[in-house]
Amino acid sequence: MQESKKKKCTVRFEPSGLKAEVQCGTSLLEAAHKAGIYLSSICGGDGYCGKCKVIIDDGQFQSRPTTLLTPDETQQGIVLACQTKALSDIIVTVPKSHTLESSQILMDATAHRFSELAGEVRAGVFEFDPLVQKIFIEMSPPTVHDHTADHERLYLAIREQIDAPIMQTGFRILQKLSRLLTGCGYKATVTIGRRDQTTEVIEVEAGNHSGRNFAVAVDLGTTTVVAHLVDLTKAVTIDSEATYNSQINFGEDYIRRIIYAEENDAFDEMQNRIVHDVNDLIVTLAARQRIDLQEITTVICAGNTAMVHFLLNLDPTRIRREPYVASAGFVPPIRAAEAGIQINKRGLLYCLPSVAAYVGSDIVAGVLTTRIFTKKGISLFADIGTNGEVVLGNRDWLVCASSSAGPAFEGSGVKHGMRAGAGAIERLNILEDGSIEFKTIGNVHPVGICGSGLLDTLAEFFVNNIIDRTGRFNSNGEVRLTEGDEGLQFQLVPQANEHHEIVITQADIDNLIRSKAGVFAAIQVLMESTQIKLQDLDAIYLAGGFGNFLNVRQAVTIGMLPDIPLEKIHFVGNTSIAGAKTVLLSRKALKAAEKIAGSMTYFDLMSHPKYMDEFMRAKFLPHTDLSLFPSVRNVKCET
Amino acid sequence: MQESKKKKCTVRFEPSGLKAEVQCGTSLLEAAHKAGIYLSSICGGDGYCGKCKVIIDDGQFQSRPTTLLTPDETQQGIVLACQTKALSDIIVTVPKSHTLESSQILMDATAHRFSELAGEVRAGVFEFDPLVQKIFIEMSPPTVHDHTADHERLYLAIREQIDAPIMQTGFRILQKLSRLLTGCGYKATVTIGRRDQTTEVIEVEAGNHSGRNFAVAVDLGTTTVVAHLVDLTKAVTIDSEATYNSQINFGEDYIRRIIYAEENDAFDEMQNRIVHDVNDLIVTLAARQRIDLQEITTVICAGNTAMVHFLLNLDPTRIRREPYVASAGFVPPIRAAEAGIQINKRGLLYCLPSVAAYVGSDIVAGVLTTRIFTKKGISLFADIGTNGEVVLGNRDWLVCASSSAGPAFEGSGVKHGMRAGAGAIERLNILEDGSIEFKTIGNVHPVGICGSGLLDTLAEFFVNNIIDRTGRFNSNGEVRLTEGDEGLQFQLVPQANEHHEIVITQADIDNLIRSKAGVFAAIQVLMESTQIKLQDLDAIYLAGGFGNFLNVRQAVTIGMLPDIPLEKIHFVGNTSIAGAKTVLLSRKALKAAEKIAGSMTYFDLMSHPKYMDEFMRAKFLPHTDLSLFPSVRNVKCET
Repeated sequence: MQESKKKKCTVRFEPSGLKAEVQCGTSLLEAAHKAGIYLSSICGGDGYCGKCKVIIDDGQFQSRPTTLLTPDETQQGIVLACQTKALSDIIVTVPKSHTLESSQILMDATAHRFSELAGEVRAGVFEFDPLVQKIFIEMSPPTVHDHTADHERLYLAIREQIDAPIMQTGFRILQKLSRLLTGCGYKATVTIGRRDQTTEVIEVEAGNHSGRNFAVAVDLGTTTVVAHLVDLTKAVTIDSEATYNSQINFGEDYIRRIIYAEENDAFDEMQNRIVHDVNDLIVTLAARQRIDLQEITTVICAGNTAMVHFLLNLDPTRIRREPYVASAGFVPPIRAAEAGIQINKRGLLYCLPSVAAYVGSDIVAGVLTTRIFTKKGISLFADIGTNGEVVLGNRDWLVCASSSAGPAFEGSGVKHGMRAGAGAIERLNILEDGSIEFKTIGNVHPVGICGSGLLDTLAEFFVNNIIDRTGRFNSNGEVRLTEGDEGLQFQLVPQANEHHEIVITQADIDNLIRSKAGVFAAIQVLMESTQIKLQDLDAIYLAGGFGNFLNVRQAVTIGMLPDIPLEKIHFVGNTSIAGAKTVLLSRKALKAAEKIAGSMTYFDLMSHPKYMDEFMRAKFLPHTDLSLFPSVRNVKCET
Repeated sequence: MQESKKKKCTVRFEPSGLKAEVQCGTSLLEAAHKAGIYLSSICGGDGYCGKCKVIIDDGQFQSRPTTLLTPDETQQGIVLACQTKALSDIIVTVPKSHTLESSQILMDATAHRFSELAGEVRAGVFEFDPLVQKIFIEMSPPTVHDHTADHERLYLAIREQIDAPIMQTGFRILQKLSRLLTGCGYKATVTIGRRDQTTEVIEVEAGNHSGRNFAVAVDLGTTTVVAHLVDLTKAVTIDSEATYNSQINFGEDYIRRIIYAEENDAFDEMQNRIVHDVNDLIVTLAARQRIDLQEITTVICAGNTAMVHFLLNLDPTRIRREPYVASAGFVPPIRAAEAGIQINKRGLLYCLPSVAAYVGSDIVAGVLTTRIFTKKGISLFADIGTNGEVVLGNRDWLVCASSSAGPAFEGSGVKHGMRAGAGAIERLNILEDGSIEFKTIGNVHPVGICGSGLLDTLAEFFVNNIIDRTGRFNSNGEVRLTEGDEGLQFQLVPQANEHHEIVITQADIDNLIRSKAGVFAAIQVLMESTQIKLQDLDAIYLAGGFGNFLNVRQAVTIGMLPDIPLEKIHFVGNTSIAGAKTVLLSRKALKAAEKIAGSMTYFDLMSHPKYMDEFMRAKFLPHTDLSLFPSVRNVKCET
């Protein structure tokens, strides 16, 4: 063994075939990082999370004993990569579920919005003033003529650099302060968190670390959790990552998850899952960017009200019961560690404020990002996710509502639906000869169809008379229309080699129509209640995880969005994470978010007398009342 | 055993002979409380602190097994009173060290100032506005027309009752809030802590508990720790208790304790001791007043800077090293539990701010209590404890200094010195025939001599020529002057039966003179530096643990205080605890204390060029310069 340590070994990782040459004795986790393989590892290699399981196929190794593997697993050659050293050339298989590469493509998809956002913050729409800052302070040490105590000396020095009328220091900081300051000659880095007029000293470190301050913005979706890593010193997004919400086993929508948690007393489990997902994303981002978890000082989350409740283990049960009340709309910043989020041990977790049980902080983030709260003209904002939330208003007033019409456009409840990842059909077009043209994310063979593809499909089916105005398949001898297990289905892509066929079923179409009808009915209720007419609308912002490129024309064609000139309709993507990031970078943006959440008027559609009528009317393509969709009438005439 | 439960048993406690008749089967701890014996018990009878040890002399009992007793102790008949039931008439010995009755008398001594202080607060010198309040709020439950989340609903209700622009809620409160509010029909008691503009929701309980809100004010003395129990709802002090500081084994003064802690890495031990003392006092007060520890929501401490550092385990080591710097002068309020103080688990611990390493929050409390910071005329404040701290000034300016001249007037470093407890000689007078008249606290046989008695002794010895102006005994054939183990000594009280004699040694006198010289030299430095003359002084306030009644005339006679008309000199007792209590009852008083601490100018006597000269000059009785003490010249002439 002594001998082997001096040698180099090659570690090959299957199935990717990526390799790393390392000193013999190096851990497999380190080798994986070097090879560009990102193993899931929450504990950062300390050997207590048990996440970095790999299988040794061939070669000599030395593994530290662990209680995190079952005897069965050990028998199968499974080891923890962080606890295992390569002693010779070695071949290792990485189980599919333990890599995060499957979500890579979606990341590239959202990446194009990074620079834009960073630019916006720098351009001074909101003053750059991050929630958590690191500042380097050089104090003069005490002398016989200057006895100021260390704690007050620190405050004086901080106040020379920033405006901080009210300051707080954690007790543990205070306890170590004197030894730390004397040890470093009174040159230290102070991490400060800010909220309203209060400034909290989060951490004090010897020496200058002010150049390394990172934060993570998280969109807590019911289906997907997305995280962006931000360099707070430069106000730029440097990486992003996404994963499915692993609560999904407990229910596709959050109402089912609340019921599950109640029936099984599984609130802790529900929290563990989402916290685990967030930690997984953070660890992945940190490993990839060679950032120590201690250098991440802030996490900011936006999401629907239920997801924020799950994350913090606040009681969500009354969200699903009349009169539908949240435990908290505004949540004070807490230590991330208190919720189990593994960043700097004294780092902060902010959750953006929500409006009501069914209008969460993701919607507040959307209003913030689209800036409709600053505009004179009237805008409409619609976020199509698991629910369809709608906001209408301008700088003087804002009203909102939520239609719980199902997550069909997130690919859920649709047979071959999927989120916007590699192999998802994101655009689809039926040509004049009836053949189908499509584009997949990553330009690979299609494995499913994501939100924007589903929108295209529904619109193209309608325009090409494959379905009628009620969404029923027209049995007009179309050969691609066959009887499947669940009734009639339309084959979009035939089976080819190992790839399965991709079909759209009657149930899929019904789900998609229900979703779009819910959104449009919500819009109608808000517009009628506030007496806003079509021609009063200056802009429509459509948000959601549809994918990269959304044909907004199709959203009008199916009757999801009001029929206004197309140039006034903007697809804005994931505004939840964009808003969270804006807040991360500017205290003024946090104030704005709080003002938005506090001033928005919520319409409870479930108790609204007109909603069900509007919903029934909207369950046609595009609507029972065709006069509402003059442009669609034209489209149909053209075909 | 079944039978014996129906009977009554008499439990007699030795050595006091106090008895209680209780139902057989009652615990000895309960019987002790009934008999008026206060056993030390931190856990309140839960059997895990092991403090309530007693010895069973006779009778039948049943004891639960415990790991808190050694086999030796069990052999000796020692049991835990809380874990032991009387099954017959029984005789129990209470070990002396485990009762707190020895400090009873001192309590009565300070008791006469309670009503006065409570009255002052009510009279509006400071507006009654306690640091921690309990308010009962009745909210309307949510309806379909009012979806406000529980957290915001709570804030709205609180803000209907009090002005609270900035509010904070602990994460754990938030997590339980919804279930709690729905469970109690939205009628709840909120405990709120206040500081500056920030209001913290400390606790939320179902139902109305607003009538039960208690706090403890603590004077953290180097020698003695005193605690007062305050009913915050009525602004009255309801009980008090004192104990020796159990750090005393590690050094009589705090410099020695810091050295000990450094050499033995015993900072934790040092904290444990003082926290233990404070807990002991709190438990005793709570047990006596039938108050649940959970009902105590606040502890506020004043003390010298080192003691506050020990209590919070802040680094005190630089207090003893040039340039003599504290870790913190201002300490934010923390959870009492964080420092190990056992009150309500979310209750707060406030420490008053200090000025410098050698001018602590006890002095700030003194300035607050005497109100010299509000007066136009110039006052002098001197606190004679382990150190002698001096403050000079008025509403426009305040200067201060500390003379580390030793704790002789606290009875320490004096052979038969003791603190002001039962049997302490508190007044002493030498009659014309040379016989000695004295009065003890509690009017019992003297066991020692406390501060006021020592002051009298020094003055009387001087006036009656038993000692000369340098403090040397005059060998003038006085029969009570004998050669003891430590040189010449003067017998104040002869031995009688089991009572030992009480003497004053040459070393005692030297210590007392050093203490008084230190104080006077500090006063001289401050007065000369600010060019204040004797006739400019409007008032002198003398504070310290001297006892009940102090003859201020004697303080001038020995040259400790400047020679101004006696009616301008006031003995103000323990202003440290009085100040702590004032702050407890009024947020405005806390602001005032912070302003005092922040604005006072500290003179470092150790580096002051004139201090040593002044000290040498003051080591005579009353002083080398007799012209400074015209009234003393007269006293001497009369004799």
